[in-house]
Amino acid sequence: MVIYILDLFGVVVFAVTGALAAGQKRMDLFGTVVVAGVTALGGGTVRDLVLGIRPVLWIANPMYVIVAVAAALGTFFVAPYVKFPMRALLVFDAFGLAMFTVIGCQRALEVQPSYIIAVAMGIITGVAGGILRDILSSEIPLVLRREVYATASLAGGVLFVLLYEFKMPSSVTIIASVALVLIIRLVAIRWQLSLPTFPNGDET
Amino acid sequence: MVIYILDLFGVVVFAVTGALAAGQKRMDLFGTVVVAGVTALGGGTVRDLVLGIRPVLWIANPMYVIVAVAAALGTFFVAPYVKFPMRALLVFDAFGLAMFTVIGCQRALEVQPSYIIAVAMGIITGVAGGILRDILSSEIPLVLRREVYATASLAGGVLFVLLYEFKMPSSVTIIASVALVLIIRLVAIRWQLSLPTFPNGDET
Amino acid sequence: MVIYILDLFGVVVFAVTGALAAGQKRMDLFGTVVVAGVTALGGGTVRDLVLGIRPVLWIANPMYVIVAVAAALGTFFVAPYVKFPMRALLVFDAFGLAMFTVIGCQRALEVQPSYIIAVAMGIITGVAGGILRDILSSEIPLVLRREVYATASLAGGVLFVLLYEFKMPSSVTIIASVALVLIIRLVAIRWQLSLPTFPNGDET
Repeated sequence: MVIYILDLFGVVVFAVTGALAAGQKRMDLFGTVVVAGVTALGGGTVRDLVLGIRPVLWIANPMYVIVAVAAALGTFFVAPYVKFPMRALLVFDAFGLAMFTVIGCQRALEVQPSYIIAVAMGIITGVAGGILRDILSSEIPLVLRREVYATASLAGGVLFVLLYEFKMPSSVTIIASVALVLIIRLVAIRWQLSLPTFPNGDET
Repeated sequence: MVIYILDLFGVVVFAVTGALAAGQKRMDLFGTVVVAGVTALGGGTVRDLVLGIRPVLWIANPMYVIVAVAAALGTFFVAPYVKFPMRALLVFDAFGLAMFTVIGCQRALEVQPSYIIAVAMGIITGVAGGILRDILSSEIPLVLRREVYATASLAGGVLFVLLYEFKMPSSVTIIASVALVLIIRLVAIRWQLSLPTFPNGDET
Repeated sequence: MVIYILDLFGVVVFAVTGALAAGQKRMDLFGTVVVAGVTALGGGTVRDLVLGIRPVLWIANPMYVIVAVAAALGTFFVAPYVKFPMRALLVFDAFGLAMFTVIGCQRALEVQPSYIIAVAMGIITGVAGGILRDILSSEIPLVLRREVYATASLAGGVLFVLLYEFKMPSSVTIIASVALVLIIRLVAIRWQLSLPTFPNGDET
C-alpha cells in the first residue's frame, strides 16, 4: 500500500517533467497530456510488455491514467503563473527514479528468476519514460548523453538483487535500494557529475 | 462486416498519408512502405499490445498488411503523376480517424470494463499511427502541436461510452460516435481551429 | 545449436554498429549500451511482441543481454584506439541481417501459418533494430532512405517461405535463404546499389 502511493507519487513527478518538456516545445493541451502520460507510464509499459505481463499496469488499474492526466493538466494551467522550483523538481525526479527502479526489479522477479533481467527491468522502468519523452520531442534522449542517471538506477538494482539473494526482509531491501538510488542521484546533482562519453566519435 | 470494410478503408487512407509523408522526406520504396504500414497499423498495434490482445490485429488477419502495402505502392508510383487533392485527403483522413476511434473503444470494452481505458484506446487507435509516422520522419509529431484532431477523437470516444452505458443498440452507438468525430474534425478543417498551446514555454 | 551461435553472432555485430552510432552522437557509456542493446535486440523484441510470443527472446534467455552489453562495452573502450575496418563491419552486418531474417521467418511460422506475415517478420527482425537505433539518434532511419538493405531481407524471406512450402529439409531452407540475403547485400555494397526514391516529394 505504501509502495502503491509512492508509485503514484513517481507517476506525478514524471508527468510534470513530461508536461514541462512539452511546454518547451510549445505543444498544445493534447500534446502535453500525451507527452506527460508517456513519460510517466512509458517505462512501466515497456517493462510489462517485454516481461509478458498483460494487460500492462495502467490498463489493469486506470488510476495511473487518471493521476498522470491530472498532473499534466495541472502543470499545463499552472506553469505560466508560477516559477517552477527546478532544484526541488530534480529532487522529486530522483525520488521517482528510485521508486520506479525498485518496482521494476520487484515486478521482474515476480515473473522470472534472472537477476540480470531484474536489474535491466529496474533501469528500463526508471529511464524508458524519459527516453520516450525526448523522442516525442525529437531530441536525442538526454539520459543517453551525459549524466549519472541510469547509473544510479543500475546501482540500486544491483543492491536490490543482492539483498534479495540474501533473503533480507523485503522492507529492508526496498528502503536500502531506494536510498542508494536517491543518494547517488542527489550527489550527482549537487556536484554535477557525468559519466565519461564515447572517447572519440570520429572512428566510423 | 460493414465495420470491417470501413476499417480497411481507414487503413488505406492512413497508408496514403504515411506514403506521402515518406515522399516529402525522399525515402526509397521500402521506406515508403514501412512508413505507410506504421501509420496505418501502428495505432491498432499499440492498442492490442497494451490491452494484451495477441497476436495483434494484422498478424491475426494479414489482409490488413496486404491492403496497407498495396496502398503504399499505389501512392509511390502514382504520386509523381497526379496532384493529390489535399482537401479530399483531409476529409478521408477525418473518416479514418472516426472509424479507428470507434473501433478502438469497442475493442477495449471487449476485453476490460473501464470507460477511461476505452476512451484512451479510441484516441490511441486514432492518433498513435500518425505519431509514429512523424517519429520515423524525425519530426515532432504534428498532432501533439496544434490542431483539433485528438480532441475530435476524445469527443467521439466519450459519446461512445455514454451510449454504451445507456445500452443503446450498437449500430446507433457506432454511427453517432463516428458522426461526432467527423463533424468536429470537418468543422476544424473548415475554420482552421486549434487547441490552446502551452501558454508560456520559458518557465523551465 | 548452430543457429543459436549464429544468432548470437548477429547480436554482437548489430550491437557493435549500435555502439558506433552512439559514439558518433557522443553519448555516454550508458547511452552506448542502450543504443547497442536496442539495435541488437530491438528487431527480435518487436517481432515477439506482435506475434504474441512471451516473454520476448532476451527475457527467456538473458544470454542475449549479456552478449549485447559485452559487445557494447568492448566497442566503447576499444573504439578510440583502433580504426574500425568499415568494410569488414559491413560484411559482418550483412551476415547479421541474413541470420536475423531467417530466424524471424522461422519463428513466425512456428506460431502462425501466414507466409505474408512470415516474410514481414523476417524483415522486421532484420531491420527494426537499425530503425530504432536511428530514432534514438534523432535521425531519419537510414534503411528507409536509400539502400538495398530491406530488399535483401525481403528476397531471403520469400525464398525461405517458398522452400518451406515445398517441404525442403530445414537445413537447405536455412542455408539457401541466408546465402541469398548475403549475396544480394554484398553485391549491393560492392556496387553501391540503391532502390529508387520517391520520385517527387513536392506533391503534398
